Amino acid sequence: MTAEMMKSMPMAEMPMGMDMMAMQEAIEACSACMQACTMCSDAMGGMEDMGTCASMCANCADMCTTMMRVMMRPMAMDMPSMMAMLEATIAMCKACMDECMSHAEMSETCRMCAQACEMAMNACMKMLSSMKAMA
Amino acid sequence: MTAEMMKSMPMAEMPMGMDMMAMQEAIEACSACMQACTMCSDAMGGMEDMGTCASMCANCADMCTTMMRVMMRPMAMDMPSMMAMLEATIAMCKACMDECMSHAEMSETCRMCAQACEMAMNACMKMLSSMKAMA
Amino acid sequence: MTAEMMKSMPMAEMPMGMDMMAMQEAIEACSACMQACTMCSDAMGGMEDMGTCASMCANCADMCTTMMRVMMRPMAMDMPSMMAMLEATIAMCKACMDECMSHAEMSETCRMCAQACEMAMNACMKMLSSMKAMA
Amino acid sequence: MTAEMMKSMPMAEMPMGMDMMAMQEAIEACSACMQACTMCSDAMGGMEDMGTCASMCANCADMCTTMMRVMMRPMAMDMPSMMAMLEATIAMCKACMDECMSHAEMSETCRMCAQACEMAMNACMKMLSSMKAMA
Repeated sequence: MTAEMMKSMPMAEMPMGMDMMAMQEAIEACSACMQACTMCSDAMGGMEDMGTCASMCANCADMCTTMMRVMMRPMAMDMPSMMAMLEATIAMCKACMDECMSHAEMSETCRMCAQACEMAMNACMKMLSSMKAMA
Repeated sequence: MTAEMMKSMPMAEMPMGMDMMAMQEAIEACSACMQACTMCSDAMGGMEDMGTCASMCANCADMCTTMMRVMMRPMAMDMPSMMAMLEATIAMCKACMDECMSHAEMSETCRMCAQACEMAMNACMKMLSSMKAMA
Repeated sequence: MTAEMMKSMPMAEMPMGMDMMAMQEAIEACSACMQACTMCSDAMGGMEDMGTCASMCANCADMCTTMMRVMMRPMAMDMPSMMAMLEATIAMCKACMDECMSHAEMSETCRMCAQACEMAMNACMKMLSSMKAMA
Repeated sequence: MTAEMMKSMPMAEMPMGMDMMAMQEAIEACSACMQACTMCSDAMGGMEDMGTCASMCANCADMCTTMMRVMMRPMAMDMPSMMAMLEATIAMCKACMDECMSHAEMSETCRMCAQACEMAMNACMKMLSSMKAMA
């Protein structure tokens, strides 16, 4: 539905050549990552010695929520700030993925969360590459 | 993926008898509504005389984000506060749906947003009913 | 600064008789509560057997963020949804205050967080009363 | 209160040498900027030809909310992701400041919002410098 709705929107402010398919994938990957991180943060907050993982996931959930929302606002599409936010989301997803992956053997929740982080990181990298190619 | 991940989580704090299927549907409907409202708010902010619609959608996007996150934290499941939040989400989705519906003929974005609001409202009503039946 | 900026804003959509002083106090109390809950959630996620408190605080931080933002959007001021959100914030702050208060003797962080929850709860109650008096 | 509460928190995970005074100032500047941008976005959404400004402010409000929360979670303090987020917040505040400043003569709301963006940008720059000096 998101993709269909995006098509109904005024795009006059959108920079020419923006890869809408890559953006759509990044929106969906950030949405999935935000959900995975919110759940993982909840579960890890209740486990011994997992406080860093819980807070890392809370940070990643917040960054992904912000990134997703920014990509859904074509009226304000600004190349430098959007590229810096993609860099920040990539860095945050990487840190959270590494943290969760280190607990993947003992926690299925962490394993799935690491996977969601990796997918969001990759989708944001692809989006960033397409924007660098435009510049 | 959200449903699968939810199954991996510790549920000791979850009140007995919670309708997990209804909750899953409410999470997804709130997620879709948050996305629709974020996009509609962006589009309406740039149209003449649509400021109320833009801000109503911003409010609804925030409430749906919060509602969705709260349902993804089984560790803190608290019946009275969750029921009050469902009431708030229902009221906010209703107000935003009514506002967007009144512009549905001139804006396809508003028409789709009203639809997403209605689905989130209905899913939250169903969840609330199932919780009232537990009490 | 928030109060000063609010004065610069167009208020044509604001319902007549809204108690701007009570609203200002509720905005500030929600802002302080969001900060306290974010910090308390972080600290409790790393302590044994405090997972419920950590997630309760995460829920309260999200609800207070949403409530505060909604009060800062006079263009979309809608009485029924705003009153339902005030009820939800009051319920959430009450639940989080009770949880944190039960750990106040062993944690100074929880004691201060409970205080911030109480202040936000009271400020939202005052705002809600003033809105009920208008109706 | 935020500063006092921060002192009550476990800081074992906090990297040595972090400038707590600069962080406190950045938290407060991001909080003020988030409030200013939320109000400015609401007001501009209702004005002709101000849609880009409204959405830019919505983006900036979201980024500042995320940045502020991340700084209030010492358990998950991770240098690379926090530095990337500071860069993103600086870029977003800069873009929003420039946009709002261009309307400062006709709107007191925009003028004050530009000021809040500038203060958040400067506070994040100071924090980033202090972190670069640690590395």
